[in-house]
Amino acid sequence: MLERVVRLNADYARAIDDDRLEDWPSFFTEKCLYKITSADNHRSGLELGVIYADSNGMLRDRVAALREANVYERQTYRHLVGLPAIVGTEGEVTRAETPFLVVRIMHDGTMDLFATGRYLDALVDDGGVLRLRERLVVCDSSRFDTLLAIPL
Amino acid sequence: MLERVVRLNADYARAIDDDRLEDWPSFFTEKCLYKITSADNHRSGLELGVIYADSNGMLRDRVAALREANVYERQTYRHLVGLPAIVGTEGEVTRAETPFLVVRIMHDGTMDLFATGRYLDALVDDGGVLRLRERLVVCDSSRFDTLLAIPL
Amino acid sequence: MLERVVRLNADYARAIDDDRLEDWPSFFTEKCLYKITSADNHRSGLELGVIYADSNGMLRDRVAALREANVYERQTYRHLVGLPAIVGTEGEVTRAETPFLVVRIMHDGTMDLFATGRYLDALVDDGGVLRLRERLVVCDSSRFDTLLAIPL
Repeated sequence: MLERVVRLNADYARAIDDDRLEDWPSFFTEKCLYKITSADNHRSGLELGVIYADSNGMLRDRVAALREANVYERQTYRHLVGLPAIVGTEGEVTRAETPFLVVRIMHDGTMDLFATGRYLDALVDDGGVLRLRERLVVCDSSRFDTLLAIPL
Repeated sequence: MLERVVRLNADYARAIDDDRLEDWPSFFTEKCLYKITSADNHRSGLELGVIYADSNGMLRDRVAALREANVYERQTYRHLVGLPAIVGTEGEVTRAETPFLVVRIMHDGTMDLFATGRYLDALVDDGGVLRLRERLVVCDSSRFDTLLAIPL
Repeated sequence: MLERVVRLNADYARAIDDDRLEDWPSFFTEKCLYKITSADNHRSGLELGVIYADSNGMLRDRVAALREANVYERQTYRHLVGLPAIVGTEGEVTRAETPFLVVRIMHDGTMDLFATGRYLDALVDDGGVLRLRERLVVCDSSRFDTLLAIPL
């Protein structure tokens, strides 16, 4: 299972950083939960997320909106995804926690630390393919860039 | 063995970043060596370390002292641990070297590169659990933050 | 194969960061291609690279030149290499893509993000050892440090 989670994370990060955003929803099951929140909010049990989607259709809508808006055009991102920890299994669901770091590269070549945090995932085998039923993206910093529109 | 070292490192980093410091000593054997030093000092063969502990009790004391002092309260950390290299085996001891990077997240949301370096580890199977008999934390930079009180 | 690629990347990064540059060419086959370029140039199909070598001898010459020039003396580097994705197999050649991040540590202890990007690799089994027949280093930023003389 560890190796399958590693593969999923590598492919997921690569799809985003290669700007193949249209592939991004395919890492999730049809019924799913995707949320970006901060460590503070997560600790406080706040349900509120900066970004929230509870179906694959909402993920696809988000990609379409991003393409329309073109807001992220002037920068690119590089995800470094750490080693996943398998933290539990409940029936068909595997729970994993994985740290990540995202660097933003501006059009003029400047690089900065954009986000760090961890993925809290619920994974299922979806017809032979490992997919995310749930990905909670808990960012360490509460200071979100207003352009936080790309998937993390 | 590679997969076991990967798991150990993932769990180790997660315990620190989740602020479960009380779990940190359990990654070490009862008799152990934990030292934080700089690449310059390490190269010069200086035994001196910024932080030094040679028993599990000293590690537990350090955690207790950290909780007392609360010095690290206003920031959190994110460890990104790289791919380990198994560099040798001597009897029951496996030696591994693993690069790491730590980002510090200040209370106001600012992030900075806090430390980079490598773990020089001696690992043993301790009753079915892989544990650190020795972890030498060699930081690339010699400029140590005076608050370098958290475990690396 | 994934584990072999992981090992190769861990050893490769360690050789450079430990300043064992003389070991660096041994990760490549005798006839090989090594190129550092930017994402912009790579997208535009420009063949031009900041650094280009098409034989193991050229890699060895580069190391000798670096030792002669000593240009990188005052800084060290830390590679964090991400999870590789095996993207294809053509006959004996395995193709892999792997993200990386390099931190530079100046002599005064300052750290900065030096480079991020991805390795586009063609790997072959060379007499029992996995080696790079091709490593294209695609940096995310187009702003190259004039001192970009170390291997990435």
